[in-house]
Amino acid sequence: MSAEDRLRELGLELPPPFEPAGSYVATRVSRGMLYVSGQGPAGPDGLVTGQVGGALTLSQGVDAARLVGLNLLAVMRAELGSLDRVTAIVKLLGMVNCHSGFNDTPTVIDGCSDLLVEVFGEAGRHARSAVGMAALPFDIAVEAELVAEID
Amino acid sequence: MSAEDRLRELGLELPPPFEPAGSYVATRVSRGMLYVSGQGPAGPDGLVTGQVGGALTLSQGVDAARLVGLNLLAVMRAELGSLDRVTAIVKLLGMVNCHSGFNDTPTVIDGCSDLLVEVFGEAGRHARSAVGMAALPFDIAVEAELVAEID
Amino acid sequence: MSAEDRLRELGLELPPPFEPAGSYVATRVSRGMLYVSGQGPAGPDGLVTGQVGGALTLSQGVDAARLVGLNLLAVMRAELGSLDRVTAIVKLLGMVNCHSGFNDTPTVIDGCSDLLVEVFGEAGRHARSAVGMAALPFDIAVEAELVAEID
Repeated sequence: MSAEDRLRELGLELPPPFEPAGSYVATRVSRGMLYVSGQGPAGPDGLVTGQVGGALTLSQGVDAARLVGLNLLAVMRAELGSLDRVTAIVKLLGMVNCHSGFNDTPTVIDGCSDLLVEVFGEAGRHARSAVGMAALPFDIAVEAELVAEID
Repeated sequence: MSAEDRLRELGLELPPPFEPAGSYVATRVSRGMLYVSGQGPAGPDGLVTGQVGGALTLSQGVDAARLVGLNLLAVMRAELGSLDRVTAIVKLLGMVNCHSGFNDTPTVIDGCSDLLVEVFGEAGRHARSAVGMAALPFDIAVEAELVAEID
Repeated sequence: MSAEDRLRELGLELPPPFEPAGSYVATRVSRGMLYVSGQGPAGPDGLVTGQVGGALTLSQGVDAARLVGLNLLAVMRAELGSLDRVTAIVKLLGMVNCHSGFNDTPTVIDGCSDLLVEVFGEAGRHARSAVGMAALPFDIAVEAELVAEID
C-alpha cells in the first residue's frame, strides 16, 4: 500500500505546510535526497509550547511529537507533490524542549517516529537521535528535522 | 553573478579558515556533497562569546551569526579553491548559546542564513533548524554546520 | 592496513550492538552513505550517566566518548558485515550532557574522534560539531551520531 493510501486509511489529514519562520526554506532536494527543515508541533490550536516534563506531561510531549510528524509530512508533500515519491525515511533528528534531568526524550520522539512507520511502513524505519534542547524557537515543545530518500 | 563576484561586490573579506579545535577536519567531501564542521563567530577581535539573551543582546547574536557565516564561507573556499564550485547550500544546523526560555533562535540564525543568500542567491536558500544549546565550545555565542552540494 | 586489522592490532573488542531504545533503527543505508543513529556510552558496567563537568570529570567524559565510538563501530559492523566496507567517516555530531558554562565539549568528543582515526586512519578524519545538550536519553554522559561513506 502506498504512503498516500495509508494516510487515507489512517484517516489522517495533513496540516497546511508551515511557513518558514526565518530566512530559510522548508525543504531542499539534492542528489536524490530530500532535506526537511526542523518542523514544530503546529496544530489547529496553534503551536504546542512549553517544556516536556515541565509545563507539559510526557504524554502531551508524545502527542506534540506526532504533530511534528504530521507537519514533516505536510512540507514533504508540498515539495514532492505526493508522499509516494519517498522511498525511505533515512535520518531524523528529534529535539525535545526540556530541562536538564529529563531523560525520556526517546519516548517523546517515538510519537513522531511511530507516525512515519505507520505511513511509510518498512521504508519509514529510520536512523535517529532524540535529544534534549536548552531552547527551541517560540518555546515549541518538540522539533524534528529529517533526511529522506526520494525517487 | 558568481558567488565570488557577489562577495567582492558586497565588499566582504573572509577571515582566515579557523583551525579545527580538536581531532577533526574543517570539511569533508563525499559523493558530491561538502560537509562543513561547526564554525563559530571568529572575528578580528577573537571569538564572540556568551549567551544570547544574556551577556549578549539579540542584535549582537545576529551579528555573531553573520560572523559564523563568514567563517563557513572561509573553510568552504579553503577546501574547494573557489566558492563558485558550490551549486547549492542544502542544509544548515544553527545553534545558539542561550538559556532556557530564549525563544528567538530563528532571528539569531537569520544572521547566517541571510549572508548565505546574499552570496549564493537562490542557490543559497537552504533547509535549516535553529535551536538553543546548553553549551557551545569555548562559550561561543553561535555555531553552525552545513551541507552543500558541489559540482 | 584495513580497519578490521587495525581493530585487532589495537586489541579493541566491540561491544554487542546496542538495541534501539525506541521506534527507530540503529543504521540506515542510502545512496552509498551509512547513517548511524545516536549511540551512547554502553560498556560492560552499563551506561555511563551524568553530566560531564558535574557528576563526571572531563577525563571520565573523554572515556565515555571513546565508549560511544566503540558503540558506533559495533552497529556499523552489524550493518555492513565488516568495517572494511567503510571508505570514509564523513560527519559526526557529538553531544555532551553538561550544564551551561561547560565549554570543553571538543575535548570530550575527541575521545570518540580519536578512536575513529585510530581505526580508519586518514579515512577516519571527519567533519564534526561537538556541542552541549540540556538532556540526553537515560541521562547518558555523551552521545554521537555519524554519517559514513561506504563502498
